[in-house]
Amino acid sequence: MTYRVFNFSAGPAAIPLPVLERAQAELLSVNGIGMSVMEISHRSTQFEAILAGAEQGLRDVLNVPDNFRILFMQGGASMQFSMIPINFLGADQTADYVITGFWGRKALVEAQRCGNVNVIYTSAESGYRTTPGQAELNFSPDARYVHYVANETIEGVEFQYDIEGAGIPVICDMSSNIMSKPVDFDKFAMVYNGAQKNIGPSGIAVVFIREDMLEIIPQGLHSLLDYRNVAANDSMANTPNTWAIYIVGLVCDWLKEQGGLAAMQKRNIEKAGLLYNALDTSDGYFTGHANHDVRSMMNVTFKLPTPELDEKFCAEAEQNGLDGLRGHRSLGGIRASIYNAFPREGVTALVDFMQDFAQKNG
Amino acid sequence: MTYRVFNFSAGPAAIPLPVLERAQAELLSVNGIGMSVMEISHRSTQFEAILAGAEQGLRDVLNVPDNFRILFMQGGASMQFSMIPINFLGADQTADYVITGFWGRKALVEAQRCGNVNVIYTSAESGYRTTPGQAELNFSPDARYVHYVANETIEGVEFQYDIEGAGIPVICDMSSNIMSKPVDFDKFAMVYNGAQKNIGPSGIAVVFIREDMLEIIPQGLHSLLDYRNVAANDSMANTPNTWAIYIVGLVCDWLKEQGGLAAMQKRNIEKAGLLYNALDTSDGYFTGHANHDVRSMMNVTFKLPTPELDEKFCAEAEQNGLDGLRGHRSLGGIRASIYNAFPREGVTALVDFMQDFAQKNG
Repeated sequence: MTYRVFNFSAGPAAIPLPVLERAQAELLSVNGIGMSVMEISHRSTQFEAILAGAEQGLRDVLNVPDNFRILFMQGGASMQFSMIPINFLGADQTADYVITGFWGRKALVEAQRCGNVNVIYTSAESGYRTTPGQAELNFSPDARYVHYVANETIEGVEFQYDIEGAGIPVICDMSSNIMSKPVDFDKFAMVYNGAQKNIGPSGIAVVFIREDMLEIIPQGLHSLLDYRNVAANDSMANTPNTWAIYIVGLVCDWLKEQGGLAAMQKRNIEKAGLLYNALDTSDGYFTGHANHDVRSMMNVTFKLPTPELDEKFCAEAEQNGLDGLRGHRSLGGIRASIYNAFPREGVTALVDFMQDFAQKNG
Repeated sequence: MTYRVFNFSAGPAAIPLPVLERAQAELLSVNGIGMSVMEISHRSTQFEAILAGAEQGLRDVLNVPDNFRILFMQGGASMQFSMIPINFLGADQTADYVITGFWGRKALVEAQRCGNVNVIYTSAESGYRTTPGQAELNFSPDARYVHYVANETIEGVEFQYDIEGAGIPVICDMSSNIMSKPVDFDKFAMVYNGAQKNIGPSGIAVVFIREDMLEIIPQGLHSLLDYRNVAANDSMANTPNTWAIYIVGLVCDWLKEQGGLAAMQKRNIEKAGLLYNALDTSDGYFTGHANHDVRSMMNVTFKLPTPELDEKFCAEAEQNGLDGLRGHRSLGGIRASIYNAFPREGVTALVDFMQDFAQKNG
């Protein structure tokens, strides 16, 4: 049996073992055709079936309405940070941004290159530990859209509700919590993600975009920076990342076998609950970053009493087969990312390790 | 043993079998670390070593000079068609484009969105069967750069020399012939490619850019559309396509084992020679597309006496384990793509099939 560790990486992140095993089994010959999925033309009937299967898989698992297109793109969520304003924010137009952490700030920088941006909320003063209540949000009357990040991966801060745009299109980066629970697409004009957390490998972004949004895109954009063109070409405006699309399809198959997103959500609540309970019962040895009411179900962030203990914790954890626990370089501390593919046994192993470590280093 | 066919696909295309076998063997645990390469953080020391190895592999195999940066990007060559003018062609500036086929025309369209473009050569009148001689090229005095496509994959037309820019930076799309022979980087300011022919899987572009080109890029570009930013972040301005970079490294290892690019060139000349000889000795049954003096070593394009016979040829070839021979939808006919990874046995199998088919359907 191949040696495998518990992989708490924030992304690229753990992929379900049955998915990896299937990809391995058919790496030289996908579906018995005598070629690797990496080797076949994206225009072949074989790949067209794989692409259609991945899209249908996402549609089934997420219950995506018919008036949303699903686009497979390259460049991850970061390229979307630019494409959104390139497509929807003219130089004399306004967009609203809600900032609750690192990725929201990254998106803001790109939008500011295109037009007027109003930051209608930022949790900077709290050190990015909070999200706004809906009542705190005052949209600009002429906002072309409002943008927010559903789960801030680095800070471990997650919205517990969907922002209501009240007529303004809501665009949401769900990179790190899509597929962790059901999504109510009625609330959104566009939902997007870099796939490398809960959907597949890196090198691909999945964009869910309401069809009417495609109609307001200006003419003359660069071909690959134009959602309308990508949609018109069914994600084949250029050669897509065929391997990643194949893996996305396998992940969807796995999710269906697991009972879908309602079952995943239940399991994710339990997994996160075990870790947050370990923080809350540590007599302050472990301090969580996010305020209690906005704790992320996907990224559990905390600190030990000193940075030196943080480092010792990570090093010893690694020796115990608990990998990828170092917090993002911008925040330090510990981050345990526990996406769908991360097994419950890994969470209980970490909880045991935390209790043991606190006792020995208290 | 896994069933494998001879895969003449134009891209995504055949990958060396030893590369696929190694990727398969370590799919669940790369380098014995207990995680798939798809699962590890791009910031991990393990992935940093994989990235550095892939870059060094390319540097070794292609003998890339120190004053060239190697960038791993997403979006394939098509995104480069836009990025080149976004970075180097202001609204009031001029660039020269040499058009010898389908991909050159695609690049031209994106450049025209940015500034003035002079088409200093086009082979449209010949149906894209020729390339210009150096003496035919009259550069615009103020050209910011001259762009051409070294090998037009669809038409099977390949430059037999490097264009000399005479002081004007030369930017060359080598998507479909890079790694097929040595490259003289002294001739170029930038060389780029979509990897899915001779370097790896789709979903990645490799850009070789001379450092002084980075200095003339304007401020304020979108982060991922700015070569300077991508270079400053060592291809990690966002999460790169980690799986593809890993495969690129394995392909470089394989190329070294094969004796490098001089050995590959010799083998490629032989393989292409077998096919072109089959065309030339068919008494006109098979008609090549490209003029004889610019025939591609990578993509051998030809037609049978009628489109119906083209189709019959492809269908029967497939039944005989010869896959991916249909010409591009824009040109029809037959296209045999015989990149580095395509084995000589496959070429002789096709030659035998051609002779047999011509005899039965002559």
